[in-house]
Amino acid sequence: MKKGIKIATIGGGSSYTPELVEGFIKRYDEFPVSELWLVDIEAGKEKLEIVGNLAKRMVEKAGLPINVHLTLDRRAALKDADFVTTQFRVGLLEARAKDERIPLKYGVLGQETNGPGGLFKGLRTIPVILDICRDMEELCPDAWLINFTNPAGMVTEAVLRYSNIKKVVGLCNVPIGIEMGVAKLLDVDHSRIHIDFAGLNHMVYGLDVYVDGVSVKDKVIDLLTDPNNSSFVKNIQGLGWEPGFIKALNVLTCPYHNYYYKTREMIEKDLVNAENEGTRAEVVQKLETELFELYKDPNLNIKPPQLEKRGGAYYSDAAVRLITSIYNDKRDIQPVNTMNRGAIASIPYDSAVEVSCVITKDGPKPISVGDLPVAVRGLVQQIKSFERIGAEAAVTGDYNTALLALTINPLTPSDKIAKEIIDEMMEAHKEHLPQFFSKVEA
Amino acid sequence: MKKGIKIATIGGGSSYTPELVEGFIKRYDEFPVSELWLVDIEAGKEKLEIVGNLAKRMVEKAGLPINVHLTLDRRAALKDADFVTTQFRVGLLEARAKDERIPLKYGVLGQETNGPGGLFKGLRTIPVILDICRDMEELCPDAWLINFTNPAGMVTEAVLRYSNIKKVVGLCNVPIGIEMGVAKLLDVDHSRIHIDFAGLNHMVYGLDVYVDGVSVKDKVIDLLTDPNNSSFVKNIQGLGWEPGFIKALNVLTCPYHNYYYKTREMIEKDLVNAENEGTRAEVVQKLETELFELYKDPNLNIKPPQLEKRGGAYYSDAAVRLITSIYNDKRDIQPVNTMNRGAIASIPYDSAVEVSCVITKDGPKPISVGDLPVAVRGLVQQIKSFERIGAEAAVTGDYNTALLALTINPLTPSDKIAKEIIDEMMEAHKEHLPQFFSKVEA
Amino acid sequence: MKKGIKIATIGGGSSYTPELVEGFIKRYDEFPVSELWLVDIEAGKEKLEIVGNLAKRMVEKAGLPINVHLTLDRRAALKDADFVTTQFRVGLLEARAKDERIPLKYGVLGQETNGPGGLFKGLRTIPVILDICRDMEELCPDAWLINFTNPAGMVTEAVLRYSNIKKVVGLCNVPIGIEMGVAKLLDVDHSRIHIDFAGLNHMVYGLDVYVDGVSVKDKVIDLLTDPNNSSFVKNIQGLGWEPGFIKALNVLTCPYHNYYYKTREMIEKDLVNAENEGTRAEVVQKLETELFELYKDPNLNIKPPQLEKRGGAYYSDAAVRLITSIYNDKRDIQPVNTMNRGAIASIPYDSAVEVSCVITKDGPKPISVGDLPVAVRGLVQQIKSFERIGAEAAVTGDYNTALLALTINPLTPSDKIAKEIIDEMMEAHKEHLPQFFSKVEA
Amino acid sequence: MKKGIKIATIGGGSSYTPELVEGFIKRYDEFPVSELWLVDIEAGKEKLEIVGNLAKRMVEKAGLPINVHLTLDRRAALKDADFVTTQFRVGLLEARAKDERIPLKYGVLGQETNGPGGLFKGLRTIPVILDICRDMEELCPDAWLINFTNPAGMVTEAVLRYSNIKKVVGLCNVPIGIEMGVAKLLDVDHSRIHIDFAGLNHMVYGLDVYVDGVSVKDKVIDLLTDPNNSSFVKNIQGLGWEPGFIKALNVLTCPYHNYYYKTREMIEKDLVNAENEGTRAEVVQKLETELFELYKDPNLNIKPPQLEKRGGAYYSDAAVRLITSIYNDKRDIQPVNTMNRGAIASIPYDSAVEVSCVITKDGPKPISVGDLPVAVRGLVQQIKSFERIGAEAAVTGDYNTALLALTINPLTPSDKIAKEIIDEMMEAHKEHLPQFFSKVEA
Repeated sequence: MKKGIKIATIGGGSSYTPELVEGFIKRYDEFPVSELWLVDIEAGKEKLEIVGNLAKRMVEKAGLPINVHLTLDRRAALKDADFVTTQFRVGLLEARAKDERIPLKYGVLGQETNGPGGLFKGLRTIPVILDICRDMEELCPDAWLINFTNPAGMVTEAVLRYSNIKKVVGLCNVPIGIEMGVAKLLDVDHSRIHIDFAGLNHMVYGLDVYVDGVSVKDKVIDLLTDPNNSSFVKNIQGLGWEPGFIKALNVLTCPYHNYYYKTREMIEKDLVNAENEGTRAEVVQKLETELFELYKDPNLNIKPPQLEKRGGAYYSDAAVRLITSIYNDKRDIQPVNTMNRGAIASIPYDSAVEVSCVITKDGPKPISVGDLPVAVRGLVQQIKSFERIGAEAAVTGDYNTALLALTINPLTPSDKIAKEIIDEMMEAHKEHLPQFFSKVEA
Repeated sequence: MKKGIKIATIGGGSSYTPELVEGFIKRYDEFPVSELWLVDIEAGKEKLEIVGNLAKRMVEKAGLPINVHLTLDRRAALKDADFVTTQFRVGLLEARAKDERIPLKYGVLGQETNGPGGLFKGLRTIPVILDICRDMEELCPDAWLINFTNPAGMVTEAVLRYSNIKKVVGLCNVPIGIEMGVAKLLDVDHSRIHIDFAGLNHMVYGLDVYVDGVSVKDKVIDLLTDPNNSSFVKNIQGLGWEPGFIKALNVLTCPYHNYYYKTREMIEKDLVNAENEGTRAEVVQKLETELFELYKDPNLNIKPPQLEKRGGAYYSDAAVRLITSIYNDKRDIQPVNTMNRGAIASIPYDSAVEVSCVITKDGPKPISVGDLPVAVRGLVQQIKSFERIGAEAAVTGDYNTALLALTINPLTPSDKIAKEIIDEMMEAHKEHLPQFFSKVEA
Repeated sequence: MKKGIKIATIGGGSSYTPELVEGFIKRYDEFPVSELWLVDIEAGKEKLEIVGNLAKRMVEKAGLPINVHLTLDRRAALKDADFVTTQFRVGLLEARAKDERIPLKYGVLGQETNGPGGLFKGLRTIPVILDICRDMEELCPDAWLINFTNPAGMVTEAVLRYSNIKKVVGLCNVPIGIEMGVAKLLDVDHSRIHIDFAGLNHMVYGLDVYVDGVSVKDKVIDLLTDPNNSSFVKNIQGLGWEPGFIKALNVLTCPYHNYYYKTREMIEKDLVNAENEGTRAEVVQKLETELFELYKDPNLNIKPPQLEKRGGAYYSDAAVRLITSIYNDKRDIQPVNTMNRGAIASIPYDSAVEVSCVITKDGPKPISVGDLPVAVRGLVQQIKSFERIGAEAAVTGDYNTALLALTINPLTPSDKIAKEIIDEMMEAHKEHLPQFFSKVEA
Repeated sequence: MKKGIKIATIGGGSSYTPELVEGFIKRYDEFPVSELWLVDIEAGKEKLEIVGNLAKRMVEKAGLPINVHLTLDRRAALKDADFVTTQFRVGLLEARAKDERIPLKYGVLGQETNGPGGLFKGLRTIPVILDICRDMEELCPDAWLINFTNPAGMVTEAVLRYSNIKKVVGLCNVPIGIEMGVAKLLDVDHSRIHIDFAGLNHMVYGLDVYVDGVSVKDKVIDLLTDPNNSSFVKNIQGLGWEPGFIKALNVLTCPYHNYYYKTREMIEKDLVNAENEGTRAEVVQKLETELFELYKDPNLNIKPPQLEKRGGAYYSDAAVRLITSIYNDKRDIQPVNTMNRGAIASIPYDSAVEVSCVITKDGPKPISVGDLPVAVRGLVQQIKSFERIGAEAAVTGDYNTALLALTINPLTPSDKIAKEIIDEMMEAHKEHLPQFFSKVEA
């Protein structure tokens, strides 16, 4: 008989792991984990040791019977797991830095989940996640795959289309971040806020927003476009919007919409940042070094507050909340990436969407949205097409398919520049893109 | 009893009119026009006289009993008309020049049917066309409205949504131009070529292409991406495509796709052109002056060959072919702008699309396409949303709606730049945008 | 400031009212009703007095500050109501008896929510409910209309299409009855059962069934088709199904499916019943007389157990559960009749469906179903078409539309018999069908 | 190089063959058949000889170089064929007689394309047609399969879903029969009539009807419901409709709609007919015997006029017209059974529908219909579900699937009667249903 819950966390050496461990500790009462397997690859062994030992100290301090295993043997970790969480990064932060630097040379956004960077992170990640899926089919066919690895939309699409694992959920902290921002804006407790989310990962809209079930969308949009709130709004939304635009749009945006509705300014800002403080990967690399120094401290037995600067706020909460709701068939509402099943009209039935769902033991059940507002339909379709064709390129290793994916991306200024960027990035990421190069060699 | 066919041509003073007249003359046998009413406004009176007299001479030379009327009284022209054709330009070429010049200042495409220029041409044109529709309801409720006025997609959308005239067809010479280009590329007679067109006006794709009913799409795509054909392809397609991109896209594009898949290069090219030879409107203004000089020649009684440089090739053929097929219930296949009626999945049922149709006396019946290829779906949706919201702005005169339309246009780099362009263009076109300014004054 | 919750119950003199009152008493803690207005018409005055006084005694016994008002003034009851519940019956049980008797003469099912009876109950009820909606617009525009009046599907469709009241929910006790039956079949507590319901009112299917979130559909279908359970199954499902049929259908049916999948046997059974014990209306008339005798007892201050024989089990629970969840924005899952909004593919976006929804203060949000199983799609469409056209006939008073509705109903054997039945029933219900007769007189 | 057109006609010994041969002769100019292979099975050898020799005499009389081959070797006939036509009947007219007789015993329609008979004809036919498809893949992969074998809807559905042959068209003479009837009703030449057909095989509606392109639907419906025309209408439509019903339905029906909108009367009529003159199969058996006697006459070298009594009027014209249009890429409009491709909303994209199509060398391209009228949607869905599940039963040999198909058929009065009919018919057709019995024996 099954003794307790087994979790396998792929990319367990991530600096985020203490967040996740904290989440499991906090919700132990309703979600009693008995085994937590942190898996990593050879190159991440040292980090795994450091963060894994911190995890063990955290569990010990909490006085809970959670067994933390550190391993490089993925199959051992997957064996009979109940939940598999993925937070790995193929090529580590070095690869991310390339995703960010190279496009900027061409005057194109360099970002790890959008545009060329998003595509190449997908091309590197999808073969690995599909390999994990194949192992899961064999070793833990009933487990849920909870994916945090970006680009979460393209990755979830790839799992749905190209693997036999149907129990997959993609998770992102963007929606919860918007909820928190709105709660702050309205100065009400987060628990009283509900938002009807719909769209795609990093392209999600809040179609309506409620306090205690009563719509306050008009008020929120007024506040978001009130010049007196501009510094606050920039904090939660990026550069701040033209009031008239956002009033006519009449839905809540997410921070990543800045890349699409403020493309030129965002690239200019990123060029300046890259020049001065370095790209985000480069900044994070420094933060991570500091974090791992902290993690090494044998007296540290809690998640250090400095982790919050790393980004990924509310990540722990979102992740463990989701897993707990699945485990307990809670039937509460959470926004996740799952198969559309008709919830958003004009997105294919079998494509991944990010949408408010009822979370059940049988998985997320999307709440029907009908059609998206006219003004956002096209952009959402465009990113969905990008995700689908990007996933296809990742699986087939077909150069032209990758070129097509990038050319149709709305952040790409032309087919020719797409080709130049792809050629340089293919070369730069060569070791992590065997599907494209093994063929050439053959 | 009805004696013969009456045509009312709004914007009859256009330099294109001899094309149209030539078309009616050529097809007189199957489409016996008895009255052709050329209508224009006071400002176009002189041109109307010149071109109208040429039209009379052409008819006389052909020896046909077509009565050509020149008038500034639109209602007299519409009274009991069978077909109303519209080829007017609100604000004349001066307005077009502004549509082209102003956006370029902001590093944005200046073009009269796409991006900011397309929006403002729509904002100026739609109120006029809806006014014509109101007159038609009263004066010729059974007539067909054949619209050539650009942006034909947005204008057709507006007529379908905001008027009671349901007998409307939008016509464009782009599809016939693609057919001609393919015929030349394959060196076969045009009559043997069939293309399955689907998409939107100036955003239409050739989903398959046939010679004598046999698909030759693969061959055409090979030829289009063959470097040996590059100069030919540039001629028919603009800048020429990355071969890998077009192979993966796997459908035929139209010349206007250059603006979307080669945005940066097109703007650079337009900036250079504007600097050197002037914008297209400025070039055309010179051509028109020359053309009207020619038209004045009392000995001229045919369409002068110089008209072809004006652009709009095959226009006469496409227009009269369409009207003739409606009149005779020919049930042949032609690509036109009409209500979707489910032909293209994921475009609303009641929106305008450009699609191959069976042309009947009861109007065009679109041939079912199913869904568009994944790679093009998003862009098409985006332009459809732009058209719908642009049409809404034109009707309501709501500033924020116009700002929304422009911001979601894929050629617009940001909401902030959208606002700057709109503010400058609103001012520049003020006299032709009463719906936006009368309110402010009120 | 609002002092408490006001409920207006149209048809308050119904024998069901004690159920509803019991429900409000039980849930008072989370749903503190301060005013309950029971409204009825002149003809129901005596019953209203009897049942209203019982309601007062029940409230008094419970020691709760709920003010029970008895009135014939509907507008006074509606004024500032928070929830309006409707349980009236136009023409009382006498009309129901005609709905049941007349079709049987033609060998057609006589039943008050299906076939000819369902149509005529709709024709009588819809004008009244739309009249209530008009009053609500004026007197309590923010109230929720909770409709229990049958045919609930056609009535909800009519409100959605032909009134301005959008806050409407149709409620039925069939789904909760299925849940209870399954709980009994599996011998588990009802609270552990979840069923994914989808379809239409009295035409709802259980697409999957879970215990503690784990699907047990296969087991339930095995039990339902196990000959050892046949007497139990007949109890909850009617006549019992052919095992092979229900196995291939592979979803749970509702008792009303017997009319469609066992048409001949059901009519035969009803003919025998009508001969022997009388039709259901005639049986209920006797039950009601007895019930009202009981209700008169001034010592009675609880819902008498005899009410359960009346039918409508779990009605109180379903109704008050729904209202309480709306009021408290509970976001729990309940099957109700609401606008489809894309939840069930191939049913129009704006039609009423019966589907599992998240119940929020903003109303029910349907959970996306995708498409119904192939085998049930057609029947569901057919009933939806019947409901739509029936609602149209009720509103327009057009005879041919009523004839069309009945002819396309799957229980009708021919257009000719449809006409004969309609002619006889129109005459029989004449006084309650002014929309059909006032015209004739005019 | 290909010398001429080769036709393979499976079931070449049919009494219909002279019709087909006449058609090829008449259209020889535009469709020059060089080889006509008539194939049959051993049991049909004698008929094949008789009708084949008549075919040879007809060709000889016409003086055309068409080579007529008679063979029992299907593979030889299929080898390099350009068109394969199928008109075979598994089990011959004896089986049809069972399809007609057995259901009547249970008070259910006995007809070879609807209800139980339609199901069993499908169960017998589909395995054979799929076997032909497998041969075609190997022997003539580029050929078009033109299927006339009933139930043509279920058979076309099966080929689309369960074979690799995509070049398949199902053909029926019902639409052309309706056109002819309307022409007669209006007293205009058939060539001037156009009808927009949409629906399914033997369940097709005329959504609009035109003379010279002008809608005359209202007039046609008035004539069809005019009591003065009743005897004429009965001739073309069966029993004649209730005027109010057909006016509200507001589309043209086909004769087979009598089974659905006049179920009871049709069964009564069929019971009487079966008693008196015999079922249709029994009548046809006599006609066939007489026809083959005629065919034997060595002096007969034309299609004898007596064939017309056999039914299947216009069959030759419809069949050869279709094939000729495909061959010549005529792009004319014809109603055929083909993949929906979105033409009819709410019918699956990949299901067979009967709809007006543009006939091209690349196959039929359906003209977009949008959604069917509300009143007919349900019935059409129901028959489509019946066809799909029937086809699945034919392929899998699963008893319960067959039971499901029959139970959901609108002509079936209950699951129990469905089972009784299936059990008797399975036994009666045992030798032609190996897919159901080989399993049982195994």
